[in-house]
Amino acid sequence: MTQRRAGDYRILHEAALRDHLAGLPDLAAVLGGEPASWSITEVGDGNLNLVFIVKGARGGIAVKQALPYVRLVGESWPLPLSRAHYEHLALSRQAELAPGLVPALLHHNEALALTVMELLEPHIIMRKGLVAATQYPRFVDDITTFMARTLFFTSELALSAADKKEGIAAFAGNHALCKITEDLIFTDPYRIAEQNRWTAPYLDGLAAALRDDMELHVAISRLKLRFMASPEALLHGDLHTGSIMVTEGQTRVIDPEFAFYGPMGFDVGAVLANLLMAYFASAGHERSPGERRAFEDWVLETVEKVWNEFARKFLDLWRGGAVGDAYPASLFAGEQGAARLEAERQAYMQRLFADTVGFAAAKTIRRIFGLAHNIDFELIENPQRRAVSEARAVRLARAMMVETGAFPAIADVTGAAQKLRDWHPEFATG
Amino acid sequence: MTQRRAGDYRILHEAALRDHLAGLPDLAAVLGGEPASWSITEVGDGNLNLVFIVKGARGGIAVKQALPYVRLVGESWPLPLSRAHYEHLALSRQAELAPGLVPALLHHNEALALTVMELLEPHIIMRKGLVAATQYPRFVDDITTFMARTLFFTSELALSAADKKEGIAAFAGNHALCKITEDLIFTDPYRIAEQNRWTAPYLDGLAAALRDDMELHVAISRLKLRFMASPEALLHGDLHTGSIMVTEGQTRVIDPEFAFYGPMGFDVGAVLANLLMAYFASAGHERSPGERRAFEDWVLETVEKVWNEFARKFLDLWRGGAVGDAYPASLFAGEQGAARLEAERQAYMQRLFADTVGFAAAKTIRRIFGLAHNIDFELIENPQRRAVSEARAVRLARAMMVETGAFPAIADVTGAAQKLRDWHPEFATG
Repeated sequence: MTQRRAGDYRILHEAALRDHLAGLPDLAAVLGGEPASWSITEVGDGNLNLVFIVKGARGGIAVKQALPYVRLVGESWPLPLSRAHYEHLALSRQAELAPGLVPALLHHNEALALTVMELLEPHIIMRKGLVAATQYPRFVDDITTFMARTLFFTSELALSAADKKEGIAAFAGNHALCKITEDLIFTDPYRIAEQNRWTAPYLDGLAAALRDDMELHVAISRLKLRFMASPEALLHGDLHTGSIMVTEGQTRVIDPEFAFYGPMGFDVGAVLANLLMAYFASAGHERSPGERRAFEDWVLETVEKVWNEFARKFLDLWRGGAVGDAYPASLFAGEQGAARLEAERQAYMQRLFADTVGFAAAKTIRRIFGLAHNIDFELIENPQRRAVSEARAVRLARAMMVETGAFPAIADVTGAAQKLRDWHPEFATG
Repeated sequence: MTQRRAGDYRILHEAALRDHLAGLPDLAAVLGGEPASWSITEVGDGNLNLVFIVKGARGGIAVKQALPYVRLVGESWPLPLSRAHYEHLALSRQAELAPGLVPALLHHNEALALTVMELLEPHIIMRKGLVAATQYPRFVDDITTFMARTLFFTSELALSAADKKEGIAAFAGNHALCKITEDLIFTDPYRIAEQNRWTAPYLDGLAAALRDDMELHVAISRLKLRFMASPEALLHGDLHTGSIMVTEGQTRVIDPEFAFYGPMGFDVGAVLANLLMAYFASAGHERSPGERRAFEDWVLETVEKVWNEFARKFLDLWRGGAVGDAYPASLFAGEQGAARLEAERQAYMQRLFADTVGFAAAKTIRRIFGLAHNIDFELIENPQRRAVSEARAVRLARAMMVETGAFPAIADVTGAAQKLRDWHPEFATG
């Protein structure tokens, strides 16, 4: 699957990258002009890879190359180059299933672990826009189409069991990336781990409480097992608002290097969690009381719509003649069969929602107590204000994870979030 | 995984098999004497393969060769030879995990889809013994050791997620065998299908009722999805009493060609279902009322012990220092953590029991309305008596599948079975 001759890989810095691209006529044509005139800028602000923007007389491209280690940490944390293979495979599949919602693929070199894509311009990382209180009117429709189609069409609802198993096997080798998730999301925030950090001293008590909270440890362990052993569909695997590039009129999902077959609720929960964190962070960014209320209302409305529209589209795909091996039509013939199957579809979505609520909670807690934080909170300069926003998010997340049944509908989540907007933890009132 | 040069495969009938074995010094030594003196007998009574017993001056061996089609049906139903590869892989793994409970492997030829094993003598197929009302005092201990160890040690309770994923991928290609199960167990008995058959005319009404029973169709479809998309552990995949060879003092599990990573309850449910069918069939075999009661009591006691001993051994393995990625010890430190983890272990077993109950029901119904029946019922010569036994088994199975929650413990299953021993369906009383 990921065979490459040893030694073919080398890190392409500016000059070598220019030579490599000059040797690819299709890409050289996209760029236009002389190779020497191309501007090449390294812009990677992610944790793992090199990312270059290359611009020529005619146009631009984005170049992503995997490094054999975690960029954020350095060579002491090796990470297989094969992730570029899986990212390319996932991107190709997503492009088929959700056309126009991922960047166009222009070139892939397996040996170099290098992928070239269209340059998304003037898109920005959605998370940055949310910090700036920007509303994205296309977002709900686009992200729910992306999720409904990529998840539905890679599940047994749409596939034969044989095709599904081939898909699972094709991504099984990406386990080093899954392991990052298993450790950083599902384990470390709940125990003493060197890489953990949080807004001290304000959240010291909460961090200690999480480490002693056995109900929470059971809940996170169940979610971890579900993450490891429930290959329901091909997941993006890292679907936070830093993996989404937007303008007000366009949405593009990027960076699926964590792709694997896992539980659908992990992707849906990631989107909801990152919106909820944007909501709780928003209070920390306001310079005058209430100035971001309209944005905050939009965020909560978006949380509700993301679930509701996702569920509607997923159900519509299922109703529209699913031909997978699950729930065969021949067992649900006639009016009575159709009615019973429809009730079962609703029950399926209810189970998926419960998963989503749990995974959303897990994705929240890791951003506040684990290794990787996000700018929603990090850009709140005053640490006490930041801690207040974070404590609200954690309070909701803890309830979502341990008392999942108390959130039977998305309005229960947004309602609880809204109430917490005016809640002050002890360290802020004492 | 299953590469072989085209044309290497050929069906080995007696003469060719003799030549092949003569060319393998280790096997020739086991047999002893001149190759020309070896007796070769084809004994395959299964549905898929050729099986030979070869005996020489010193000893005997069993030879199994896969055919490129389903033996029971003929060349019109092709089936990949690669199943011999997966069977060999599973047998090797089971031999490591449950030593002494599978036949010793003596030789495997991938190209010929041929496996040579120790000759099990004087073992018989357990199902035949059960028809003859034989009790097997070693069975509970052996089969529960086999299941507890093969299931526990191939799950994330004992493995890293990476090793688990490699295992899943290694068996993903065996989907043609999974498809047989998906069709014959989880689909066909609930719809009109050419291959279905049942004890007509007595069970005609029941067969029709199953086809219209939408609660049952939902339940079987949930189980089917679970079978397809829940790779909890490496399953035997076909663990009925026809896949177990016994003497009163020994138990050997054979024929794991349906092996794949699936839900643990499928294997455990298979054993329980086949014992329950032996129980219900027993009344049909009695020549004087009550002559098989002691045997029947032993069967029900065995049903209880199989679950209870399996659960005890599985839990003991888990408690004894599980080092897999699930439920990491670091999250359950201290007295409180230990207590909470123990409660979670019990909850895990409760979920596994519910799965087991559902799968046991599915395995029962397919033997009465699907393609493949079993001799427990088939050898009851009087069709009305056979139908009575079958109707009792189906009545219990329907309840187990649709009202699984009404069977929280194994005693609820055996209690219900016992009550049905004196129930007479309408066609037998009218």
